[in-house]
This record gives sequence, structure tokens and C-alpha cells, in this order.
Amino acid sequence: MFETAEVGATLSEAAFREVRDRLRLDLIGLQQRARAADFPIIVILSGVKGAGVIDTVNLLNTWMDPRWIATTAFDEPSDEERERPLFWRYWRSLPPAGTTGLYLGGWYSDPIVQFAEGRLTHASCDDCVLRIKAFERMLAEEGALILKFWLHLSKREQQRRLSRQGKDPLVGLRASDNSWFTPRSYDAYLKAAGYVLKSTMDGAAPWYVVEGGDDNFRRATVLSTLAEHLGRHLKQRGKLLKDRAKAQKRARKLAKRGKGGKSHHVRAPVRNVLDTLNMNQRLTTVAYAKAFHQEQLRLHELQRRARAKGLSTVVVFEGWDAAGKGGAIRRLTFALNARDYRIVPVAAPTDEERAHHYLWRFWRHLGRAGRMTIFDRSWYGRVLVERVEGLTPDDAWMRAYAEINDFEQQLAEHGSAVVKMWLHITKDEQLKRFKERTTVAHKRWKLTDEDWRNRDKWDLYENAVNDMISRTSTTAAPWHLVPANDKRFTRVTVLRTVADAIERNLGG
Amino acid sequence: MFETAEVGATLSEAAFREVRDRLRLDLIGLQQRARAADFPIIVILSGVKGAGVIDTVNLLNTWMDPRWIATTAFDEPSDEERERPLFWRYWRSLPPAGTTGLYLGGWYSDPIVQFAEGRLTHASCDDCVLRIKAFERMLAEEGALILKFWLHLSKREQQRRLSRQGKDPLVGLRASDNSWFTPRSYDAYLKAAGYVLKSTMDGAAPWYVVEGGDDNFRRATVLSTLAEHLGRHLKQRGKLLKDRAKAQKRARKLAKRGKGGKSHHVRAPVRNVLDTLNMNQRLTTVAYAKAFHQEQLRLHELQRRARAKGLSTVVVFEGWDAAGKGGAIRRLTFALNARDYRIVPVAAPTDEERAHHYLWRFWRHLGRAGRMTIFDRSWYGRVLVERVEGLTPDDAWMRAYAEINDFEQQLAEHGSAVVKMWLHITKDEQLKRFKERTTVAHKRWKLTDEDWRNRDKWDLYENAVNDMISRTSTTAAPWHLVPANDKRFTRVTVLRTVADAIERNLGG
Repeated sequence: MFETAEVGATLSEAAFREVRDRLRLDLIGLQQRARAADFPIIVILSGVKGAGVIDTVNLLNTWMDPRWIATTAFDEPSDEERERPLFWRYWRSLPPAGTTGLYLGGWYSDPIVQFAEGRLTHASCDDCVLRIKAFERMLAEEGALILKFWLHLSKREQQRRLSRQGKDPLVGLRASDNSWFTPRSYDAYLKAAGYVLKSTMDGAAPWYVVEGGDDNFRRATVLSTLAEHLGRHLKQRGKLLKDRAKAQKRARKLAKRGKGGKSHHVRAPVRNVLDTLNMNQRLTTVAYAKAFHQEQLRLHELQRRARAKGLSTVVVFEGWDAAGKGGAIRRLTFALNARDYRIVPVAAPTDEERAHHYLWRFWRHLGRAGRMTIFDRSWYGRVLVERVEGLTPDDAWMRAYAEINDFEQQLAEHGSAVVKMWLHITKDEQLKRFKERTTVAHKRWKLTDEDWRNRDKWDLYENAVNDMISRTSTTAAPWHLVPANDKRFTRVTVLRTVADAIERNLGG
Repeated sequence: MFETAEVGATLSEAAFREVRDRLRLDLIGLQQRARAADFPIIVILSGVKGAGVIDTVNLLNTWMDPRWIATTAFDEPSDEERERPLFWRYWRSLPPAGTTGLYLGGWYSDPIVQFAEGRLTHASCDDCVLRIKAFERMLAEEGALILKFWLHLSKREQQRRLSRQGKDPLVGLRASDNSWFTPRSYDAYLKAAGYVLKSTMDGAAPWYVVEGGDDNFRRATVLSTLAEHLGRHLKQRGKLLKDRAKAQKRARKLAKRGKGGKSHHVRAPVRNVLDTLNMNQRLTTVAYAKAFHQEQLRLHELQRRARAKGLSTVVVFEGWDAAGKGGAIRRLTFALNARDYRIVPVAAPTDEERAHHYLWRFWRHLGRAGRMTIFDRSWYGRVLVERVEGLTPDDAWMRAYAEINDFEQQLAEHGSAVVKMWLHITKDEQLKRFKERTTVAHKRWKLTDEDWRNRDKWDLYENAVNDMISRTSTTAAPWHLVPANDKRFTRVTVLRTVADAIERNLGG
């Protein structure tokens, strides 16, 4: 795949000067338009030492407005990074919408270097490639523009160029960056790079192999490729949003006339997991007191051991309004050391969060090794409220099942226990609790008009919940359905479920 | 100071039950009201082992809505934390407005433990106390409610209680948390704690010493103290904001009638540092090329060494509109390795940033050891645009000079070079550049209506700039005034100024 970049392509000074001014103007204009756009620009620059990666980065920062460009190179992971799944540091580096993330090597340096040096088996490298593809695909599907450049030099050209660069100390110093791809190790690295690049070619995140033997050619090629893609992307994305707005308007009109728009047809109850639950399970006060105390002790001890071993726990609470999530969380945390857990209440995203992929805000909250992170509602909002209320286009929430499975898989692979619980109450029980909330003073603040509106859509939510459970119950992160009509039973079950999960995780 | 908490205060079960329900209702109601308030609640809980710190935290999380409470205990610093000034981790833990931060020990554990164990001299402990006081004062002045509780036990009572707790394994386990304040080391720690507490008593961040020998008494005292303060604070803060809105409305009215409101009177030009600048310094193309290349090499080499030594650099660019900040930043970064710097463009704060103290958003951007963080505009907006445009009350921006000096002092103490540059152009030169921007295509995006509006207020800004320079030029972080009428001269001067600062920092 590198042959086309070893032909000795050049661009004369005159020809370069001709395109330069136009290109520069184009880029700055496009960048300005992109500032107001709803997507980020992700540019990965990698390549052979001496082929001009650093110079290209500097040029981009000079020709465009560097304030809206963040350049990232991943060094050895910090201990905070090591204590989270591998991709945590990539997620936290992602540029918000309207800005550009320039990556030196990006998420490709690790697999290429490790594969070249034999620290990664072929199979592990393939795993890594799959994860990268899923990651880029996911970002692209939310609108990100992703471009990847491999700046190339033939072995002989590299040798010539590196010796020549020695004369200008500044250029020489600058090139000293990419220290892993030197002539001595050229063949091994190139083979690894070739394999990884070929495996991560993707229409939504294409690789461009650019010959780096001639500065003018390299600069003009990279920058005009960027300009072309950015221009096209702005246009397409603008059109897409317009079409989507139109479609939504139409759907709302339909919904007003009849009852429910296109996505609101109630399905026949073929395989309704929720209906299989035994909703009559109860605990007497005495049985509760005993079981609760026992599970608290058990959970406390297990969490202590998990903390010592650095094994994290991610707990997800989902459930109907008034199912008792809050109370269950409180009872859960009572058994824990307050420095070992954090509750993340999930409400409407902040504007910073809105400027990122929807999973970004959950990645950012992942706790350090050995801690428990408790999500009160979670990323499942994507396939529940966002689906039912039509806040997210159909294709986006449909995609989300796979994205979520991949996310949880990464948590599990990093050694976290993932505990997902759906607190289930019957419709009658919900009504009873809503009424109680209107009368008991210290519960009144809990009930909002929205709760009543949600209740009207019970059947739609039920469909969504069933889909969610059947599509995201994985071995790594199974769903636990908790019958929650009886609060005592719920609380003990929640404690036991979390304790069981930690125990399994410790045993593994 | 602990005598009053060794009297054996108790509250009978019946008396507790009587206040409990009311208190609980109060707290949950107050917390709901505080959700919509513009300030955070910061509660520090510390004390003698066995006095019930953990139980109090759990109780607060049970009685109030734990979703809006974040509990933090500071362990050994991570390497990311070690690579920033000490207070970085306190800043990043701060709760946003409308929520509560519960701290186990908070910023007091380190000084008390280290002082007790002789790892901190008396003088260093005093420094630490001063820093804490400044920190809390600053947060309080922006509206934060800060309450600090010391839960106390006499030595004998502690011994009795710890042996008693052994019977209930859960309580025993929970108490195992605060492992440093055991009976064996009681006296040394108590002495240290007494000293630190006494030194950090403050009306805006008071300490409450609460006897912990009786659970009911301790719980009722802590929670009713919190409820009382929160209620009063909500009232006061509401009134303050109302008054402030009224005053601003009045000022705007006045400003409309006459020219300029109260803060808009132009001072006699007594001591105008800007006027002392020689604005005629220029560089020829040849001299520029040579000097620029030379400084680039120098800066590159210095930054390489600073990176290797882990010495960070914080660069602040301030200056008139069109003074050439952007161009200077671009030239500066051209000499640097792209993985070693990050540009932070400072525009309007995001809603997450707005929910914190105004310095929070700058703390969060501080880079890791050895990196350069370049602020394109900065925290000085507080005393420039926010002052001139009346976006911030007078007392707030007047306070800011000291807050900023303290912030920069912390950066310097941690080993960072702090380089602050004011790029100065004359009013005529600005006009020339504005006009140029309207005509040159690839510069047109730079000019906004706001630039013209700011220009109308040149004199007001000039006053603000002079005040800023005279009040925040410190030994640790002096201002560098850069005559910027000639772009070539500016760019070389900027490079040289940054290089000089790094050189001094390396030499020190």
C-alpha cells in the first residue's frame, strides 16, 4: 500500500505558491464555518520519521486558527489513565464540536509499535484493530469528520532526508519527535504499519498515504485533502440536519393528528421479559432487617477487598419513575466507605457534554481503580427516553445497542464488574406511589409533571425496556431485573446483586 | 478549644426522634431550594477516630438526596496530581453551584497529619494554613457556603467507644476509615489539629467542634447546624442578588442618560505604565529573519530541557484587539514540539464553568509537568472586560487582583515559569489594522462588531490595563509589556521573553 508513495512526487515552488494562497484562504474559511457546526474534526497524522509529521502539524496550526485546534500525542499512560480502560484517555482527548483534534500517531502508535516490536501477537493486534474501527465508526456516525494521514518515505529516501536535515538544527530537532521509526528498524515498523493501516481503512475514516519526500507536495496534498473533505462534510452535514428537522416536523404533525407517529406503534407482546417477573415477592420487617444487615456486611467486606485489589465496579440503576432507585442507592451506599463510591446522577447533558459524542459524558465519570461508580440512570437513556420521546433519530438509537455493548465490554475487560439493574414496578404500584408523593410532605419534591407524562407512555417505554434488555444483556454485563413493588425486597435484592457481582469479579 | 466537646453531651432517643422528622424535612427542602441557587455547599467533616465522621456522611447521604452530594476523600496524590500545584486536586474536586461537596478531612488532613508527625515544620504549617484560608475565603466570597465540623472525643471516651464498636462489625469496619487518629497517637494529633483549627477559624468558613460521644447528639447537632446555615445563606444570597440586580439596573439607567455610570469615570493619567513604552521599535526583514531563527532554536532547546526536567510553563497573552496575539502565538508554537504545548483560547465560559468559581476553568486547564500551557486571553478578563463592561460587581473584580496573585504564586511555587505578556499597540495602529481586516479576505473573519465597540471604550480599558499591571506584577509572575506596533519586533520579543523565562526557571 505504500508503493504509490514512493514514486518521487514533487511540486515545484512556483506551483506550490500558486495553490498556497487559495488553499490557506479556503482552510481558514472552512474552519470558521466549522466553528458553528455540530461535529468535531479529527485528524490523525502518523508516518515514517523524517516524512514531516511535525511540520504538517505546525503548518496546520499556522494556516488555520490554532485556538480551535488541540494537538495530542499519547505518551506513556499516567497512573490515572492506567486505572481506567485503555480507551479512556482517547475519549478524554476528543475535541468538542466545532473544533479540531490533531493527533500525532493517535490511537495507532501503540498497536503499530507494539506489533512491530513483537509485544503484541497477531491476534491481539486484530482485537485492537477491531476496537479502533468500532471507535472511529461510532464517532463518524455521530457526525465527526475523521481523516488519517500516513506520511511516507521509502527507506532510501528516509536515509537521505535524515542526513540532509542534520544541517538545519531546528528541522532536525523537530523531527526528533517520532523516534520509533528510524532507518534501522524501518522494515519491521513498516510491515506492522502496513498491516494496521490496511485493516483500518474505512470509508468513514479513510487513510491517506502521502509521499513525504518533497515538502511542497506533502503540504499541498495533506492540506488540500483536508480542505476538500471538510468542505464536503460541512455541506453533507448541513443537508442531513435540514432533512432530519423536516422529517421530525412531519412526524410531529402526524403524531398530533393520529395517536403516535411512526415509531410509536405498539408491538404485539411476543417476548416480554418484564411479564415473566414474579412481582409478588415480599419481605417481612423481621426478615428484611436480618437479610439487609447480612448483605450490608457482605458487601462492605467485598468492596474492601475489591478496593485493595484495584477492581472497580460500575453500577447502573434504571427503572420506572418511583420504582425506588433513589432509596435503593441510599441503602447501597450506606454499607460502603464514602471515599470508595461516587453517585453520578444523569440528567440533561451540559453544553460541554452536548458538544461531544453521547457516550463521552459517561467515560469522563469513570472512577479510578477499586472504586464504585453508581449511575442513577445512565447511557441507557439513549434507547429509553431519547427513543420514546423522539429526541434522537431512529438510526442513532438503533445503533446505540451495539455501541453500549462495546462500551461495557471495555469496562469488563479492564477488570470492572458491571452491574445493571432494572427496578420494575407494576403500573398500579406506580400510581399508588405517585399519589403518596402528592400527600407526604417530604416526598412531594420528587413528583413532577413529567412523571405523569411519562406514565401516559407506559406501553411505549415497556417496548423500549424489553428491547434494551434483550439486546444489551451480555455475558460481560447482564441485566438484572429486580421486582420492586416491595421496597424491602428491592433493597435487599439490590445489595445482594451488587455483592454477587463483586464476588464473581474477585473470584475471576 | 476541644474542652466544650468533652462534657458528655447527650440527646435522649425520645428527644432525637422529636427533632428528627422536622430536621429531615427541613434539610430535603433546603437542598431542593439550593439546587436552583448560584452557590455550592462545601462541608468538611473531620475528627477523632470513632467520633462518627463516616456515620455523619452516610446520614447526610440518607437524609438528603445523595445525587446532589459528592463525597471526596483525598488519598495519596496520583501522578497527574503530583504534576500540578498542590491545590489542583482540591480545585478539581469542587462541587458546582446547586450541589454539595462533602469532604472527609478535606484539605485539612494533609497539614494536620504531617504537622503531627513532624513532617511539616511550624513555619510550613503556617504557610499551609494561610493558603487554606485564602482558598476558603475566595470561595466564600463568590458565594459558597462553607461549614467545617470537627467531631470530637476525649481520649478516654475514644478508648471506650472503639472497644464498644468492636461488637458491631459493620460499625467497626466503617470506623476503620480514619486510621490516623487512633488512641495511641491521640495527643500528638490533637495538638496539631487544635493548632490548625484555631488558625483557620473564619466567619466565612467556621469550624464547629461537636462532641461525638453520643450518636443522637452528634447527628442532631451537625444536621441542625447545616440546616440553619443553609437556610440563612439561601436568604442572604437571594437578597444580595436582588440588590445587585437593582443596582445594576440603576447604573445602566444612569449610563444611558449621562455618559458612563459610576465605575466609568476616567482617571487622571497619573502613573500610566503603557505610556512609558517606546512604540517605535522595529525590525527589518533581514534582522527579523536572523533573530527569529535564533530565538526559535533557543526556545526549542530550552523547552526540551524543561520538558525533561518536568518544569512547566504557563504563558499568558493579553493585549488590545488586533495587537497580534494570534500571530505571535502561532510563531511561538512553531518552535515547539506539538506534543509539548496546548493553547487554551479563553472565550465565554461554558455552563459547567459558570457553575464554578471563575478561576476553576483555568485550574482545570493546567498542563502536566514539563508542558507549556498558552492562554490566549486569561483570568485577567476578570479585571479587564468584566470590569469595563460591568459584567462583574465592583467588589468582585477588586478582589480578583489578590486572588490572581495567589494563583500565580502557587504556579510558581510548584516550579512553573509564569510568563505574562501585554501586547500593546497605539490607537492609530489599531484603526489601521481594523481597516486592513475589512479589506484582506483571509483576515475578514477576525473582525467583529464587538471589536469596534471595545475600541470606543479605549480609555476605560487603558485604565483597567494600568491597574492590572501595577497590581499583579509580582516577583513570581511579572508582566512583560511588548510594544506591538511592529509585528516582526513583537514576534521576536515574544519568543525571547518566553525563552528567557524558561531559562531563568531552569537555572533556579
